Amino acid sequence: MPTYTPPIRDLQFLLHEVLKISETDLPGHDELAPDFTEAVLEAAGKLSSEVLAPLNVIGDQQGCVLENGVVRTPEGFRAAFDQVKEGGWTALDCDPEYGGQGMPYTMGVATGEMFVSANMAFNMYQGLTHGAYSAIHAHGTDAQKQTYLPKMVSCDWTGTMNLTEPHCGTDLGLLRTKAEPQDDGSYLITGQKIFISAGDHDMAENVIHLVLAKAPGGGEGTKGISLFIVPKFLVNEDGSLGDRNGVSVGALEHKMGIHGNATCVMNYDGAKGWLLGDLHKGMRAMFTMMNEARIGVGLQGYACAVPAYQNALAYAKDRLQGRAVTGAQNPQGAADPLIVHPDIRRSLMDQKSFLEGARALTIWGAHLVDRSHLAGDADAEGLVSLMTPVIKGFLTDKGFDTTVLAQQVLGGHGYVEEWGMSQFVRDARITMIYEGANGVQALDLVGRKLAQDGGKHVMAFFEMIKSFCKEQSGNEAIAADFIDPLKAASKDLQSAAMFFMERGMKNPNDALSGSYDFMHLFGHVTLGFMWARMAVAAQAAIDAGTSEPFHQTKLATGRYYMKRQLPMTATHLARIQSGAATVMELEAEAF
Amino acid sequence: MPTYTPPIRDLQFLLHEVLKISETDLPGHDELAPDFTEAVLEAAGKLSSEVLAPLNVIGDQQGCVLENGVVRTPEGFRAAFDQVKEGGWTALDCDPEYGGQGMPYTMGVATGEMFVSANMAFNMYQGLTHGAYSAIHAHGTDAQKQTYLPKMVSCDWTGTMNLTEPHCGTDLGLLRTKAEPQDDGSYLITGQKIFISAGDHDMAENVIHLVLAKAPGGGEGTKGISLFIVPKFLVNEDGSLGDRNGVSVGALEHKMGIHGNATCVMNYDGAKGWLLGDLHKGMRAMFTMMNEARIGVGLQGYACAVPAYQNALAYAKDRLQGRAVTGAQNPQGAADPLIVHPDIRRSLMDQKSFLEGARALTIWGAHLVDRSHLAGDADAEGLVSLMTPVIKGFLTDKGFDTTVLAQQVLGGHGYVEEWGMSQFVRDARITMIYEGANGVQALDLVGRKLAQDGGKHVMAFFEMIKSFCKEQSGNEAIAADFIDPLKAASKDLQSAAMFFMERGMKNPNDALSGSYDFMHLFGHVTLGFMWARMAVAAQAAIDAGTSEPFHQTKLATGRYYMKRQLPMTATHLARIQSGAATVMELEAEAF
Repeated sequence: MPTYTPPIRDLQFLLHEVLKISETDLPGHDELAPDFTEAVLEAAGKLSSEVLAPLNVIGDQQGCVLENGVVRTPEGFRAAFDQVKEGGWTALDCDPEYGGQGMPYTMGVATGEMFVSANMAFNMYQGLTHGAYSAIHAHGTDAQKQTYLPKMVSCDWTGTMNLTEPHCGTDLGLLRTKAEPQDDGSYLITGQKIFISAGDHDMAENVIHLVLAKAPGGGEGTKGISLFIVPKFLVNEDGSLGDRNGVSVGALEHKMGIHGNATCVMNYDGAKGWLLGDLHKGMRAMFTMMNEARIGVGLQGYACAVPAYQNALAYAKDRLQGRAVTGAQNPQGAADPLIVHPDIRRSLMDQKSFLEGARALTIWGAHLVDRSHLAGDADAEGLVSLMTPVIKGFLTDKGFDTTVLAQQVLGGHGYVEEWGMSQFVRDARITMIYEGANGVQALDLVGRKLAQDGGKHVMAFFEMIKSFCKEQSGNEAIAADFIDPLKAASKDLQSAAMFFMERGMKNPNDALSGSYDFMHLFGHVTLGFMWARMAVAAQAAIDAGTSEPFHQTKLATGRYYMKRQLPMTATHLARIQSGAATVMELEAEAF
Repeated sequence: MPTYTPPIRDLQFLLHEVLKISETDLPGHDELAPDFTEAVLEAAGKLSSEVLAPLNVIGDQQGCVLENGVVRTPEGFRAAFDQVKEGGWTALDCDPEYGGQGMPYTMGVATGEMFVSANMAFNMYQGLTHGAYSAIHAHGTDAQKQTYLPKMVSCDWTGTMNLTEPHCGTDLGLLRTKAEPQDDGSYLITGQKIFISAGDHDMAENVIHLVLAKAPGGGEGTKGISLFIVPKFLVNEDGSLGDRNGVSVGALEHKMGIHGNATCVMNYDGAKGWLLGDLHKGMRAMFTMMNEARIGVGLQGYACAVPAYQNALAYAKDRLQGRAVTGAQNPQGAADPLIVHPDIRRSLMDQKSFLEGARALTIWGAHLVDRSHLAGDADAEGLVSLMTPVIKGFLTDKGFDTTVLAQQVLGGHGYVEEWGMSQFVRDARITMIYEGANGVQALDLVGRKLAQDGGKHVMAFFEMIKSFCKEQSGNEAIAADFIDPLKAASKDLQSAAMFFMERGMKNPNDALSGSYDFMHLFGHVTLGFMWARMAVAAQAAIDAGTSEPFHQTKLATGRYYMKRQLPMTATHLARIQSGAATVMELEAEAF
């Protein structure tokens, strides 16, 4: 069975040596000293590695079962969920007014990585609840907040997001679920939703569904959509649970992975629901959840690959096979460990350099969210809005690739289920699909975010890279290895953006044909930027006389990324600049 | 359930318009006129799409079961296997002396693609048998050939390859299975083998295991290894079946995919075996099977992705979601089909252009094998030996990627098992691992094949590209789109080879750190070459006034590959030229 080691040192490095969060202006948060965050991370790490990780394989093997209309979760899930709740982990970054601990989102993300790495399917029950909590917190009436939030903060009640229907996922304008207004101000919701993660289970007293549906008078397409709160059990005036609502689980989906999470077909048969936010403004309210959810899925994409890498590494150190080409490294043994072989190292370094870069990007993204929410930093808000599709799309694509690389290190043992590597691949695969398939992320980036506010945010991004490079140009220890390649990669990204600006107006297909490559090009530049920032911090520690080998390792890992991964920007640019011609030429019938 | 459409037209194009096999010198094969090959392909295609493809999902869902020491295959497999045998398909390219039909290997590969596309797990029972047939055919005594080959040609008896043991796969020098010589000239084989595909099942009367084991006196490592024939049931003098031999199935592996094939732990407890080929020369004999097997696995890699692409395409034409950015294409419908969206086309074109290129490369490889075996063409032999690791490694990596792309087109429907897309991904994954993990293919290419015969074969490869480009430089219709990019890509490959030559002697790690990128770089150049050759053939048909849209589509698809895939050579070269420094820098403890 795979094991999991929480990356506490690396998270602390990011929080304190790179982002310096205790020195940043985050009003109301003076608690974030290294000792404090370390204690929080240690506790979350312990729960993750000792309680949640051992349940990961069990969840995969047993899956969820629908019996007499009720979903049963795998053995041990319920007891573990109680431990998570009792530890206050579900409340970590929630509003103290509703029982939350009020820590910054950054801490929620840092601890969340470990929960996801340990057991992604399990963590989704809590993750979906957090998304629903955020939507109600942002758009609910006072009464709704009082009714639902305390119970959702504690995860006594969990939450879901209901968007997809059998005939539509991306194009929500087509949805058919109806909401009929009642005299008491409530609505009756009728329709079928599919792919509803954590749709039902046996770990909470109630499930609060947030459901997109069409109420009369809203017009065609997405304009007619509203968002409704539809609890599984109706809630009485005094907060106690009343009757079962008209919502039921039609079926559980059989999926490639995340077997431990109940992916449900939900049937709404005149279920009682209450409007959340404004009538016919459901899409806007739902997007509150979706931006957070997309960063969360980007996190899943790489977090799922962290234990995959760790177990591949352990295997590579342990498994004796062949001899190093430069002479035996383990002459007493029957053979050398796999890790002596250059191609195994190439694979491990690909994994390691991506994962540490991805962690930096996600934590930085969370920090920008905090700067935006807590300090009202509009630039941070613009930047994170621009980069949300990059975090979601790039990190999940590369995270999945990383699980495949890790699986490959084990050879045939990676393909059999016994070693648990297959599960990481199968679980990670969903992250490229849900919360907007990655093609939709690329479309969001190129079709929407690039031009947002007159292109202000992407210009700010380039400006930030430029001034960082200028600032560090005299930092001789890292200039050649980090700053020069970052400049070159950033130039490729600017050329691509320029190509879109020049051609996109005349022929939008010229931009959209390159959208996916642009998302990856952006991702590489961003990870290059993260590595350069980490290099600056690592070099500073070395210059200050650190005795830890950690910082030298960080520099070496970063050099690998700059040399071996960043050159991808040239290929992405070449593809983008080839335009739409070869992409759009064939008639549909000619395929 | 997914459907499958045999690519008869494309195969005929390759056989007759590109390779012109009926005009090539293949002594003893005057039968290969277009009508003849079309009839063969049509019949194989019909069997594949109508009989084997519908069993693919069933095989995945039911898997194989070990009951009382006997393996039971999924429902319908046995009847289908009988149909394959009765149609003579297992005998297609086998020696007529033993009941084979004596067609060239090229025809075996062309029909084989369809069998694999339809049902990879099922086809492995026959595929492994063919490998074992080839080894006995090449190395067996007359008596052994008479005893085993007729039954194996008909697949009344099937075959296996037994290499891997729990502690060694790649490094066979470590193997522990023992062979004790007996007075009657036989050996007693004792040991455990794992990951044995088609190790046992209920579709044949006997299973003929080819087993690597160590007989006394051979010395250390791979030198001491011999190859043995170990039948499940002993064979009497008259050819009838005798006693059960001392070989049994210890367990079935639970795997990510290919559930329909029985992957067995095989226990040999003093099983009677007979030496195949020379004592202590087992590795050489096994390699006879392995080269064929590696081309076969390369074929599996892309063939598995063919129906994945076909079903993604059907979905993209059928599913209505969103509107084309340039205006509604299906104004009567609620939305436009997915295929109007540039990023969906980008994905479909990536799939299509890879698959058609991969098919060309594999059929060309098979043709080179025929030229080598039937016409004694030593250049062809050298070329195919050089390219075997490329065919295996590149086509399986990209084939797997292609199944992932295809799955992505279906969004959430790709992730649930109901649509069958997950199975293509899970099945394709094994092709990157077995018959030598792809890292081992890269090592074989760079560490062995490049320098083989003084580098003669790689020089011949470059010469071939060069003279082809020269020959076509006046072909104005295709020069700019195909010949120029092929020249540039080939130059990148030469630069990489040069880098290895200059640096590899002093520091072998400099070469081996780039081996994987070199394999992919080689793959891209080869596919670029295939596309250029296909373009020449397609253009010739157009110039001759063809009325088929097929040839224009072929050119458009090729242009996509040259513009959008071939630029990867620059990134691979950059990585290679970065050498070993960043790959080898970290101590194992520092990871």
